[in-house]
Amino acid sequence: MLENKDPQRTSIAQLGEFGLIDHLAKNFGITQESTLTGIGDDAAVIDPGDQKVVVSTDFLIEGVHFDLSYMPLKHLGFKAVSVNVSDICAMNARPTQVTVSIAVSNRFPLEAIEELYAGIALAALAFKVDVVGGDTTSSTTGLIISVTAIGLAKSEEIVYRNGAKENDLIVVTGDIGAAYMGLQVLEREKQVFLVNPNSQPDLDAYTYLIERQLKPEARTDVRTLFHALEIKPTSMIDISDGLSSELLHLCKQSNTGCDLYEDKLPLDPQLISTCEEFNIDATTVAINGGEDYELLFTIPLEDFDKIKGNPNFTVIGHMTQASAGSNLVTRANTKIPLKARGWNALDE
Amino acid sequence: MLENKDPQRTSIAQLGEFGLIDHLAKNFGITQESTLTGIGDDAAVIDPGDQKVVVSTDFLIEGVHFDLSYMPLKHLGFKAVSVNVSDICAMNARPTQVTVSIAVSNRFPLEAIEELYAGIALAALAFKVDVVGGDTTSSTTGLIISVTAIGLAKSEEIVYRNGAKENDLIVVTGDIGAAYMGLQVLEREKQVFLVNPNSQPDLDAYTYLIERQLKPEARTDVRTLFHALEIKPTSMIDISDGLSSELLHLCKQSNTGCDLYEDKLPLDPQLISTCEEFNIDATTVAINGGEDYELLFTIPLEDFDKIKGNPNFTVIGHMTQASAGSNLVTRANTKIPLKARGWNALDE
Repeated sequence: MLENKDPQRTSIAQLGEFGLIDHLAKNFGITQESTLTGIGDDAAVIDPGDQKVVVSTDFLIEGVHFDLSYMPLKHLGFKAVSVNVSDICAMNARPTQVTVSIAVSNRFPLEAIEELYAGIALAALAFKVDVVGGDTTSSTTGLIISVTAIGLAKSEEIVYRNGAKENDLIVVTGDIGAAYMGLQVLEREKQVFLVNPNSQPDLDAYTYLIERQLKPEARTDVRTLFHALEIKPTSMIDISDGLSSELLHLCKQSNTGCDLYEDKLPLDPQLISTCEEFNIDATTVAINGGEDYELLFTIPLEDFDKIKGNPNFTVIGHMTQASAGSNLVTRANTKIPLKARGWNALDE
Repeated sequence: MLENKDPQRTSIAQLGEFGLIDHLAKNFGITQESTLTGIGDDAAVIDPGDQKVVVSTDFLIEGVHFDLSYMPLKHLGFKAVSVNVSDICAMNARPTQVTVSIAVSNRFPLEAIEELYAGIALAALAFKVDVVGGDTTSSTTGLIISVTAIGLAKSEEIVYRNGAKENDLIVVTGDIGAAYMGLQVLEREKQVFLVNPNSQPDLDAYTYLIERQLKPEARTDVRTLFHALEIKPTSMIDISDGLSSELLHLCKQSNTGCDLYEDKLPLDPQLISTCEEFNIDATTVAINGGEDYELLFTIPLEDFDKIKGNPNFTVIGHMTQASAGSNLVTRANTKIPLKARGWNALDE
């Protein structure tokens, strides 16, 4: 699970930067019609046809966004691509290309970088995006990954954060909170391991939670679902920092308030049982947890019939006028103001 | 020149990530017609019209690519944008947007980040690009900057690295080697300063060299020159790692050899005098120095008249067949094989 500790260690310095790029570039072919030129020139060239181009970028920094003592490098590579592709999905665009830059210290042998790129290649395959460029350099300390994702969409398809209206339904894909509890389980196992390195963890009861943390899947399928159901959300965002934080973004940018219903939150049974075991409130986890990379969106009330009963979607509330504020309506039917407690890299 | 040491220090944690993004985003308006949405959504949206989209990305890492003891933060911000815009210029595309991500440790107060962004804003203005997104996070150690530059070009305008043919002329813009010698001067002054902090350096004799190192200007003007002169290079690259290294890239990707003439290299008088003072061979500096961000390109022999006497361009050699190898023709008229000794971040 950890860094590659086996005896086959090839120093990156032996290859040099150009050697490393050549070595890694071999994994990445071109599958997207819109990719005219990938890795190997000063820049990649993309043919958007008559579509708009959507661009998003994110950093992942060791010690801030991930801990290699429980994040395998292959999963990290996958996740780095997935979280960026997720931003493109949140615009209702089709992800098509990514650039991946890495900075590594000399404690990482070539084999470790290959593991990382194996995960990147897996994600590229899963989400049907081409890796068209990047930068490879040394770092004085840990591992740093910077991904830029590019997507295409027709002008009229793009969904912004600022289009929600009063009475629009608030909808979330999948279930939420699991990625956060997966992290809690992994952190507990790390502490146990530090005390007793010979302990054999039994993680069977937490497989879903751990998978959600280590291998989040960007919802590239949702755009297709919208198309089939003839839905265009009025606003949309992906859940990276936590449901409450993201919902407050939609409210602020759309100039609305919201009522979010505690009893509507979609929770996986494994999340509920693990929250009980950890003695943590499942609602708190679901609204503040983050890193689920599900999509949060709003639709007009009259579109309710189009998603009713669809297992991909859960209506969790509705937008109100801005003056009503942003509230969580509890099971006891009391309203409490919603706060952005989302995970915040700069607060730590 | 150094980090902001004045008493006004605002901790970044006080603002939080979202506060910091809001604070910094205020500097960046939209000036490009192709920018539909900039900072503030999951992704930026770009309208390429009927043009192709060109994308390039680069890391700048403290302790690897820059040293804050002689690189002022404002210059660093400028340079981070410039070196990426330079890659777009090297495709003969028009730079239009950049995303800028930074990771900072808590040793940087808000005022330092503002200095950095002042330089980024200056470069955006100078090169007429919009800052449309980015990521802002904490780092466990130094400062890390990741820039992605986007440009637009008509399909038939784009110049790749692989189109050079035997007998094509090798041309370089501006002069070369100065950025490297600027770094040598700054490093010498740093050593002097460490020994005697009260010394007052007299850098008047080196202003051009230092400017080339600290504030390299991407050659966004060259595309316009090509258009006016009705030239389309057969291959092009920007000089980041050093002339010899870049020329070898063109030869390898175009499957040619080359003869590069030592006596044709365009050297600034300040470079020549400073090389004498430092007792360094000016030719070695010019072909291996790097970081000049001039453009290196090839044109068909019959286009020679179009650039003859143009002060922006110097013909420094010609392409040969691949079997003839890549050579430097010295002043003594002997051929020695050209080697890529370019600055290589992973070799250090």
